Amino acid sequence: MKNIRNSSIVGMQCIRCERDYAFDDFFEGCPACLAEGWPASLKVRYGRFSGQLSMDTVHNWLAYPGPCLGEGHTPLVDFPGLADEAGVAGLLVKNEAANPTGSHKDRMSALIVQRAREAGAPTLAVASSGNAGTSVAAYAAHAGLGCVVVTMPGMSPNWRRACEMHGARLVATPTPDERWMLVAQKARSGEWYPVTNYMIPAVGSNPIGIDGFRAIALELFLQTKNRSVTDIVVPTSRGDLLWGIAQGFVDLREAGLIRAIPRVHAVEPFARIKRALEEGDYRNIYDGKSAMVSLGGSTVTFQAVDGIRKTGGSAIPVDEQDVLRDQEVLAQNGLYTELSSAAALTAARSIGLTGDAKSRTIVCIATSHGYKEFQQYREPIELYLQNGGKTEI
Amino acid sequence: MKNIRNSSIVGMQCIRCERDYAFDDFFEGCPACLAEGWPASLKVRYGRFSGQLSMDTVHNWLAYPGPCLGEGHTPLVDFPGLADEAGVAGLLVKNEAANPTGSHKDRMSALIVQRAREAGAPTLAVASSGNAGTSVAAYAAHAGLGCVVVTMPGMSPNWRRACEMHGARLVATPTPDERWMLVAQKARSGEWYPVTNYMIPAVGSNPIGIDGFRAIALELFLQTKNRSVTDIVVPTSRGDLLWGIAQGFVDLREAGLIRAIPRVHAVEPFARIKRALEEGDYRNIYDGKSAMVSLGGSTVTFQAVDGIRKTGGSAIPVDEQDVLRDQEVLAQNGLYTELSSAAALTAARSIGLTGDAKSRTIVCIATSHGYKEFQQYREPIELYLQNGGKTEI
Ligand SMILES: [Zn+2]
Ligand SMILES: [Zn+2]
Repeated sequence: MKNIRNSSIVGMQCIRCERDYAFDDFFEGCPACLAEGWPASLKVRYGRFSGQLSMDTVHNWLAYPGPCLGEGHTPLVDFPGLADEAGVAGLLVKNEAANPTGSHKDRMSALIVQRAREAGAPTLAVASSGNAGTSVAAYAAHAGLGCVVVTMPGMSPNWRRACEMHGARLVATPTPDERWMLVAQKARSGEWYPVTNYMIPAVGSNPIGIDGFRAIALELFLQTKNRSVTDIVVPTSRGDLLWGIAQGFVDLREAGLIRAIPRVHAVEPFARIKRALEEGDYRNIYDGKSAMVSLGGSTVTFQAVDGIRKTGGSAIPVDEQDVLRDQEVLAQNGLYTELSSAAALTAARSIGLTGDAKSRTIVCIATSHGYKEFQQYREPIELYLQNGGKTEI
Repeated sequence: MKNIRNSSIVGMQCIRCERDYAFDDFFEGCPACLAEGWPASLKVRYGRFSGQLSMDTVHNWLAYPGPCLGEGHTPLVDFPGLADEAGVAGLLVKNEAANPTGSHKDRMSALIVQRAREAGAPTLAVASSGNAGTSVAAYAAHAGLGCVVVTMPGMSPNWRRACEMHGARLVATPTPDERWMLVAQKARSGEWYPVTNYMIPAVGSNPIGIDGFRAIALELFLQTKNRSVTDIVVPTSRGDLLWGIAQGFVDLREAGLIRAIPRVHAVEPFARIKRALEEGDYRNIYDGKSAMVSLGGSTVTFQAVDGIRKTGGSAIPVDEQDVLRDQEVLAQNGLYTELSSAAALTAARSIGLTGDAKSRTIVCIATSHGYKEFQQYREPIELYLQNGGKTEI
């Protein structure tokens, strides 16, 4: 695996104050904004992109163009029946479960491992009890790097076993806040190269990783040439994915490939980003628990607010019972997603209630498949007996 | 979803006696061969394919070209380190886990549902406790068809819940043989449209479904233009996947796109196909149990023998302990596959022991990811305490 950084990179830039910095690792966001009390992350800044783009050249727009484990190029599936049901012109699902570890996080991990190798960091650290943990564990293994997954005692058995198989070290802390403290301490000492952010209030994950989510916008542009997508719904906790997609569309516009940008919306388990948008302050701390495990979290980031604002999107809180129902609806249309992904369909329905719904074509991002989180069976299995009898097990 | 059958189809043909039949459903294989006591399946027979092929036109070579849930176009990942370890020139993995339900079976299900709709069949039936069950359940749901998954009492919880979420009816029989009897009875009465075969000795699954596996050969051809692949290793029970891949390469040769066909090998949990090849009789019945759940099974099919013979391949039995180790090796190289998929790496190693190993470039087919089958944890998690103490959970 070669680590060849994209030669179009001109440096890093704060997404809030727009100060420029030299290309480097920024684990704690923009130092200037942090000092002012408004934590915000940086982005990789590029010179102008060529006006050419195809599925084979999407990776040339990323910070490290090397392919890794086959991530990206995920399918976009059309659900005309769900569009009718929601009262909108179109409803499509971008299925990120088709990535190597079954979630969008692989787009981040692919870039992170290339950066970590370039920087000479021997051990990656990821604070996650879910998709990010297994993804970073897999990509670290592939790149020959160490990996520590900092988790919580109740980690789902399917995720836990995957991390173990990839050879990651699993460390739990009794409380969520202690996770951040542990990673902060080890990152500041240089022992661990952090993928996820450990600040409270948080900034986004490692900016090199977030850069990879921009590819989703580029792929959507190539996959929807014949339709006018008006809205993208993104399951959101801290907004890494949302901001990356929004920035990808901004890049496409700057490259002259599109004129209008779709609205990028956050779907969230409670009014957290929504409140930040309304109040103009994203620094509140919440009790972040949710059954939608990938969407929980106690902090809002500037990047979530930024991605929504610059595309004219919104934050859409959804009810857990509605999402549980929509997880079944999606599965009964063929897609078995994690609960957090089904939230995008629930949010799409609420967009369908707006006045101009009939002109909306919505892409829901399905972040991961349902095989990782195990819940309850719904019914016993019928046991068919040879004498014609039946029982249940 | 439109059900437009490929206009290049000229009928069905027995893969053993080469008798031609009109295009139709053949659930029990070639009637002539069955009457002679040598059960064999049929294939969809095409006129000449155009000499043009690209990733965008692969589906035009299939019985029903309609896209469904985003199946196919799976990544091919290069593992130069594993090639060195195995002593071969190249070792690549075609990752079928990137399909919508996480296995190669989706290529079969996508065609089956289109055929079932065309034929007016309301309910699909699949005898499976694993990947085929969840795949058919998902595609049936997507197509608005009913689905019965005929399983065994010990079905893995992850697979079971997926079937439930897709809205399939789950029916268990106390013994494997009773599964076939139940499906046979309902198929013959016209109540169920069978995907898997129910004969003992078995023929392959529904030929319309197997047709879809040919796409893997076409994709490999397009993905390996710069390398000369000499061997394909396919995890095999009844040989649906193996035969489809072999036939795809034959089709490419007939279309004038390739000259030499790679050897297609079956990896199996015990000498079953191997014995059939040696003895010239594939009709023995075995105790089919294996920890490699996707590779178990008591019968050998003519198609497995045929796919191997016409490509110059072989059957490679592997030891379960070696495969368990190779599942970890693959995961520690970034790919967490089901145990049955890791068997392909074990078989590739044995190809690496042959005299001309240095000239071999091997593609292993990874049929499914590891999230579906749950086994044991390997170690307790370290619990990190704030006072610096550690314990285990
Ligand atoms: Zn700043
Ligand atoms: Zn025949």
